[in-house]
Amino acid sequence: MADAQPPVVEFFWDPGSPYTYLASTRIQAVTRDTGAQLRWRPFLLGGVFQATGNSSPVSLPAKARYLREDLAAWADYYGVPLNWPEVFPGNSMLALRAAVALEEDQLDAAFARAVMQVHWDKALDIASEAVITNLVGQLGADAAAVMKRVQSEPVKRRLRAYTEEAIERGAFGAPTFFVGDKMFWGNDRIPLLHAHLKQIRPA
Amino acid sequence: MADAQPPVVEFFWDPGSPYTYLASTRIQAVTRDTGAQLRWRPFLLGGVFQATGNSSPVSLPAKARYLREDLAAWADYYGVPLNWPEVFPGNSMLALRAAVALEEDQLDAAFARAVMQVHWDKALDIASEAVITNLVGQLGADAAAVMKRVQSEPVKRRLRAYTEEAIERGAFGAPTFFVGDKMFWGNDRIPLLHAHLKQIRPA
Repeated sequence: MADAQPPVVEFFWDPGSPYTYLASTRIQAVTRDTGAQLRWRPFLLGGVFQATGNSSPVSLPAKARYLREDLAAWADYYGVPLNWPEVFPGNSMLALRAAVALEEDQLDAAFARAVMQVHWDKALDIASEAVITNLVGQLGADAAAVMKRVQSEPVKRRLRAYTEEAIERGAFGAPTFFVGDKMFWGNDRIPLLHAHLKQIRPA
Repeated sequence: MADAQPPVVEFFWDPGSPYTYLASTRIQAVTRDTGAQLRWRPFLLGGVFQATGNSSPVSLPAKARYLREDLAAWADYYGVPLNWPEVFPGNSMLALRAAVALEEDQLDAAFARAVMQVHWDKALDIASEAVITNLVGQLGADAAAVMKRVQSEPVKRRLRAYTEEAIERGAFGAPTFFVGDKMFWGNDRIPLLHAHLKQIRPA
């Protein structure tokens, strides 16, 4: 089966989620190792929480206390930086709309990685128009044109549609991965995703 | 440092929790690999939920739908059986009190492993006095004497004290592991616990 299609991993991400940032530092090693394709899918975690009745772990005091320690342990385990953003929880709407707007330039994947790094390593506020405009420019896109598209109805609608799609497919948190119908929730499910991709890999 | 004390892993378990069962099938390989001591600590997850405001993942419909698939994926990944109990959620009070009562016979660790296996592999109802009495007998204890102790005030008090201790130390779910002050929550944190034990291992 020389022309078998490689499996596709859809990675639903919201840069406001620290576990999504952690996952973003690992997922490419997994798709490379298994010959899978990676599709970065922006979605609004706040919308998912609202629709499903789920809530951020920080809304429970005991979980909030544990969260920082847990995130530091993961960053240490992965060997990646993690610095608490100057504004948390951040508003990720602008960043997510920019990701959608960059899809037609095929710069959405590069932007996804960059915006999570800017938020969780450089600790910058991703609700800042200056921060996002700067990032878009660094990727080689026409920043003024992209930032105009960011505020357009089609881009706003597309982000809503992606969020609704994820909810309909079963998502209730972030990060959420899909391989076809199979869902994996959380940075901590990457080993299970990895094992699944190995299992279904075309021989 | 030939007489350095090995690190102690305290494993707070409630047999009603499927993720605790999964963890119970893996934790000994981790403590063996790192020369750590394992202490099985019974606690009542329902009491932890009540005190912290946390709740079972099955209380959210979208999470409940995902839960079965996720548990099956973990069981597959670990290569262990997982069969849904005839009664779920089960009442684990009797099983936990039996574990406490068996501490003075030093059979609590063997009982912990056995009761989780009976619940999540044999799928039996662990609220059944016949099931628990049978298990206690199989471990070589005087079943009648132990089952009498199970209903005694000191045993009930001790289980409450263990639960309160876990809450005070930061627990909000199960399984919860402690290495000194350091807490690890969840079956999915076993890799982080393992890495921590390797790091602190006496040379």
